[in-house]
Amino acid sequence: MKLLKDKIQQEGKVLSDVVLKVDSFLNHQIDPMLMQEVGEELANRYSDEIITKVLTIESSGIAPATFLGLVLGAPVVFARKRKSLTLTDNLYSAKVHSFTKNEVNEISVSQNFLSADDRIIIIDDFLANGEALKGLLDIAQQAGAHIVGAGIVIEKGFQKGGEQLRQQGLRIESLANIKSLANGKVEFFD
Amino acid sequence: MKLLKDKIQQEGKVLSDVVLKVDSFLNHQIDPMLMQEVGEELANRYSDEIITKVLTIESSGIAPATFLGLVLGAPVVFARKRKSLTLTDNLYSAKVHSFTKNEVNEISVSQNFLSADDRIIIIDDFLANGEALKGLLDIAQQAGAHIVGAGIVIEKGFQKGGEQLRQQGLRIESLANIKSLANGKVEFFD
Repeated sequence: MKLLKDKIQQEGKVLSDVVLKVDSFLNHQIDPMLMQEVGEELANRYSDEIITKVLTIESSGIAPATFLGLVLGAPVVFARKRKSLTLTDNLYSAKVHSFTKNEVNEISVSQNFLSADDRIIIIDDFLANGEALKGLLDIAQQAGAHIVGAGIVIEKGFQKGGEQLRQQGLRIESLANIKSLANGKVEFFD
Repeated sequence: MKLLKDKIQQEGKVLSDVVLKVDSFLNHQIDPMLMQEVGEELANRYSDEIITKVLTIESSGIAPATFLGLVLGAPVVFARKRKSLTLTDNLYSAKVHSFTKNEVNEISVSQNFLSADDRIIIIDDFLANGEALKGLLDIAQQAGAHIVGAGIVIEKGFQKGGEQLRQQGLRIESLANIKSLANGKVEFFD
């Protein structure tokens, strides 16, 4: 997705060989026009599939997932990283190790909002080691839902998550796939 | 906003005289079509103002804030409740007591994304005691920004936050303002 790759080149900050900071448009400040295009592009790539629900994780997955949900006419469910006093239902839960926050979160989704009848797409802002995606897959499997695939805004293709999960048969559509962050420069696959 | 009030009556669950659960369309599962209408309605109510930035707080403020930002053509910034390893800039911070989670969070916004040139609208899913809104106002004031007003999806008008802040001169537009949750029923003002 050219618009996204241009934005990454213009505004992304390479903090190390593995860390790309995109907080000016994706995960702290959000560019709504770009997120709308992201949602439309993901819908386009999965236009061959029936999708009944969009599953993501708070917080940076919510904007792209919601624009995708709007195009699909499907509700969005975001997994919570912490329990609220009003989140009292029976829950699907999974453990997720976050490398950027250096901690393990238990993520949860109410059993009211995912079922065996659902055909799910999983959305996240980043795919690196695949920990968040694996947690969301675990939750979707606990619900017995059919997993159509995943949609990722930025994949760090030089890390292992995407390759591992594709080898296990998961369809993953990444709108920007990064080959390298070496020498302070962003290089994409293709 | 009739569509929103109807949705609250149909799907909201009154857990006590003070707790309304709306996790089927606002703060766990999200109804993207409703959120789009919320964004358009808020833009409409503030159509007399110039707004350069939408400020909200993770996670449930993000969807309505992003749709508002799309209509306004303005970026959205969401305050973070926890620090990320990539959130290393100088920060504006404020303390917020959450009644539903029963804890104090320090919320933060990078100084890169709010400035004295900004004309800010603050968006949140709920207004009850006003703690989150006060924290966001504090952050906007630290930036020296002009605060145009606030946009709230659901105000619990029987709690004190809205009244206090309006008395201090803040413009607050609530799309549904709840008068009472007594006897398991939602009653709105107007």
